[in-house]
Amino acid sequence: MKDRLEPRLRILLGAAIAIGPGKAALLEAIAETGSIAAAGRRMGMSYRRAWVLVKSMNGCFRDRLVEASKGGSAGGGAELTEMGREVLRRYRAMEARAADAVVQEMQAFRDLLAEQPPDEEPDRD
Amino acid sequence: MKDRLEPRLRILLGAAIAIGPGKAALLEAIAETGSIAAAGRRMGMSYRRAWVLVKSMNGCFRDRLVEASKGGSAGGGAELTEMGREVLRRYRAMEARAADAVVQEMQAFRDLLAEQPPDEEPDRD
Repeated sequence: MKDRLEPRLRILLGAAIAIGPGKAALLEAIAETGSIAAAGRRMGMSYRRAWVLVKSMNGCFRDRLVEASKGGSAGGGAELTEMGREVLRRYRAMEARAADAVVQEMQAFRDLLAEQPPDEEPDRD
Repeated sequence: MKDRLEPRLRILLGAAIAIGPGKAALLEAIAETGSIAAAGRRMGMSYRRAWVLVKSMNGCFRDRLVEASKGGSAGGGAELTEMGREVLRRYRAMEARAADAVVQEMQAFRDLLAEQPPDEEPDRD
């Protein structure tokens, strides 16, 4: 049975999550789809929910991370700003570095794990 | 406004989370309260929910992490096994090492953050 270590970084500004796993994935989806609605759909969230996350991210940094353009034949698209790309790049770099830092400890931790999980379970904690 | 980096490690065994932030906190609460029910209450979860998480953890490792004793005047308590203490100790050590690894990058990242968050928000991504 495959085991896996997932480092999930959250950067908090006060009580707000400036960026975390969900928001980083949303930024990537926006960069790839060119649309907040399409990015939200890909992640299984409503347009409204995706907008709330974008608005929150835009407000947590010195410049906005996502720029939405209204109108046009495509009905309005969205793209990452330079700041958005920079934040995403650095976030992923921190995540990779955090994972690298615990490779050896994870190797040792593996010995404590069972051969396979007990059974399918819905809990996500 | 205070910013903070929270590394949250998840160790997955197949699709199951062997241990993550919620389960680690539950282990600590069980160690402190000597009871799964009391630990669950402290974390705002039902007894049933706490039990599901304990059962899942117990099944993901070579030995169980929590031992529950039924009956007795206290109505049954619970405590961490040696394996439970070991898993918790190593999990916290990995978390600390992951955080240490990104201290410098976080320092630089700080310059990108706004002075304060946009406003109160319920989103937790």
